[in-house]
Amino acid sequence: MALPFVIETQAGAARLGRMQTAHGPVETPVFMPVGTAASVKGVPQDTLEDLGAQIILGNTYHLYLRPGHELVRKMGGLHRFMSWDRALLTDSGGFQVFSLTSLRKITEEGVTFRSHLDGSSHLFTPERSIEIQMALGADIIMSFDECTEHPADERRTRESMEMTLRWARRCKSYFDACQCESPTKQGAPSEQALFGIVQGGMYANLRRESAERTVELDFPGYAIGGLSVGESRDKTRDMIAATLEILPKDKPRYVMGVGYPEEIVQYACMGVDMMDCVLPTRAARHGLLFTSEGRLNIKNSRFAEDQGPADPKCGCKVCSRYSRAYLRHLFVAGEPLAGVLNTMHNLAYYLDTIRAVRHAIRLGNLSGIFQEAYPLA
Amino acid sequence: MALPFVIETQAGAARLGRMQTAHGPVETPVFMPVGTAASVKGVPQDTLEDLGAQIILGNTYHLYLRPGHELVRKMGGLHRFMSWDRALLTDSGGFQVFSLTSLRKITEEGVTFRSHLDGSSHLFTPERSIEIQMALGADIIMSFDECTEHPADERRTRESMEMTLRWARRCKSYFDACQCESPTKQGAPSEQALFGIVQGGMYANLRRESAERTVELDFPGYAIGGLSVGESRDKTRDMIAATLEILPKDKPRYVMGVGYPEEIVQYACMGVDMMDCVLPTRAARHGLLFTSEGRLNIKNSRFAEDQGPADPKCGCKVCSRYSRAYLRHLFVAGEPLAGVLNTMHNLAYYLDTIRAVRHAIRLGNLSGIFQEAYPLA
Repeated sequence: MALPFVIETQAGAARLGRMQTAHGPVETPVFMPVGTAASVKGVPQDTLEDLGAQIILGNTYHLYLRPGHELVRKMGGLHRFMSWDRALLTDSGGFQVFSLTSLRKITEEGVTFRSHLDGSSHLFTPERSIEIQMALGADIIMSFDECTEHPADERRTRESMEMTLRWARRCKSYFDACQCESPTKQGAPSEQALFGIVQGGMYANLRRESAERTVELDFPGYAIGGLSVGESRDKTRDMIAATLEILPKDKPRYVMGVGYPEEIVQYACMGVDMMDCVLPTRAARHGLLFTSEGRLNIKNSRFAEDQGPADPKCGCKVCSRYSRAYLRHLFVAGEPLAGVLNTMHNLAYYLDTIRAVRHAIRLGNLSGIFQEAYPLA
Repeated sequence: MALPFVIETQAGAARLGRMQTAHGPVETPVFMPVGTAASVKGVPQDTLEDLGAQIILGNTYHLYLRPGHELVRKMGGLHRFMSWDRALLTDSGGFQVFSLTSLRKITEEGVTFRSHLDGSSHLFTPERSIEIQMALGADIIMSFDECTEHPADERRTRESMEMTLRWARRCKSYFDACQCESPTKQGAPSEQALFGIVQGGMYANLRRESAERTVELDFPGYAIGGLSVGESRDKTRDMIAATLEILPKDKPRYVMGVGYPEEIVQYACMGVDMMDCVLPTRAARHGLLFTSEGRLNIKNSRFAEDQGPADPKCGCKVCSRYSRAYLRHLFVAGEPLAGVLNTMHNLAYYLDTIRAVRHAIRLGNLSGIFQEAYPLA
């Protein structure tokens, strides 16, 4: 489980770190664009490189169904299949199968679910999730957890948390056994790292207990899952804060599935090292652009004759070249280039935002970052 | 009507030429990608530049309806609106409105049609088409013609041809009058060039007569329209050959709406200077790839584990980086990147093909080109 992680400097609770994956270094805090089915929707890989994406996320559920993890394994793993030589992370598939509320059944063994594509029946267990993620071959893989529904009372949340802990133990046992039994083709031990996931719903005491007991299992990194499921932003922050108190300071800390740009900044300032979210890419496809002046709904008629760039402070390829009027036209006309350009800009905005956070930590001064993150506050 | 055109050298009937537009030179024979609504679907403009696109085509009908030619004019014209500094050509809108068979009515005055977007009623006349194309501001604009339906008997074809000639005269009169009345903002005369269009259906005698009488009107370039409407490829070639006999050798000759790669080569060898077609871009979106080994339907399951590039002889960014297996996955999964990458490759293939034709003309040897164009023959 090789994932060297060095913290270079700190500013308050925020940490400037460096993870060394088998596919190069990742400077933290890092934002990871989501490439669900081996593609960040609409964006070629060289563009992602130009944007400075250091690590992207693939979804195990989607890749398992299509093209199938065995095919990806035959093609040399996800990196080679999608021609992405930088770092990759896969989720466990847990979040997606729990989202299939009417199509799945949860037992101690695992989750039986029906494919959203063809209705076929499948079983994900902790062991199966790890097996699939090993076939995909991402640098960082995730334990199979239960994402507790929201709202849930404390008793139900504890039960769910306990199962996540039992599943975490099964994931780690299976993963460790595979490491011993089957060295990779290169003859070296696997260079994948398996992270644990903290649950505990909206109860700070359960979050702390989940963190303590997950840390006892000794993972090379820890995620905070089950957030951004409908709770208030204050609640999200409190749950992150409660968990961060417990998580070891010398390991990467990853908050899954967040958030808006200002949240990214806030959580990084609290000491979170990794985040991912579909928001910049999904919002882009719906015409929502993140800018230094706030959010723009590009289809708004007030942009019809606006010759300015999407964001006057942004230096990305989209803002350097195209006007709001053109971006609006593309979106209204249903042109495929709309999604491509909007996604490129939103990713540039997110990646520039987190880059600015890293810069501020290096300078030891986070005060300006919050003002930029909340331009309308 | 400034459109200097120099023929640098010839090989047989094929000509290596250079058009000087207000937006830079265009080496001919040239293939023009189609950017219907101010965008070559899915492809950013810098990628088109990298691919070597010298001139692209916009559709007047689509731009008139959305975003509207007056908006484009306000935004500084189509070049500025879409941020494309190289040459542009717009069609007259004629072909599109004639295609709305159940929604249009043709009279001597022009064509009344209903928008495919909202059913609203509009009238295109020769004068109106030129007015719209002047607002769009492409370097080369086209006369409003009637694309004769196929099949059509000789009498009907002659009537249609005669109307196209009367409309060509009206287009030219209107355009010339505007040139005198309204110098452009820069104080210089307009740098747009208006081309005439030869019709005549599938009758060589009518094609020749149409060419002679269109040439009498004295345009800076001539298009051959009304082809690729369902006739055999031999018939297309014969109609082009009959027309080329008549068209002046010192003016650019443009065959509209063709064709397959091997047709592009063939017509260029016959002395055609300009061609455009939706085929590479539209086929790409349907998963059809043009390669040196013939056409590939990328969704075919035989490509599921094919680690080779789409075309082993192609040096484009797609073939340099991605496998057929990955391209197939993207297409089957409905990923937007499928259309983007497939379009990039097909355009690269077309633009490389026509570049090879230019190279062969320069070397004075076209013999190898035909073999490459018909790899499976």
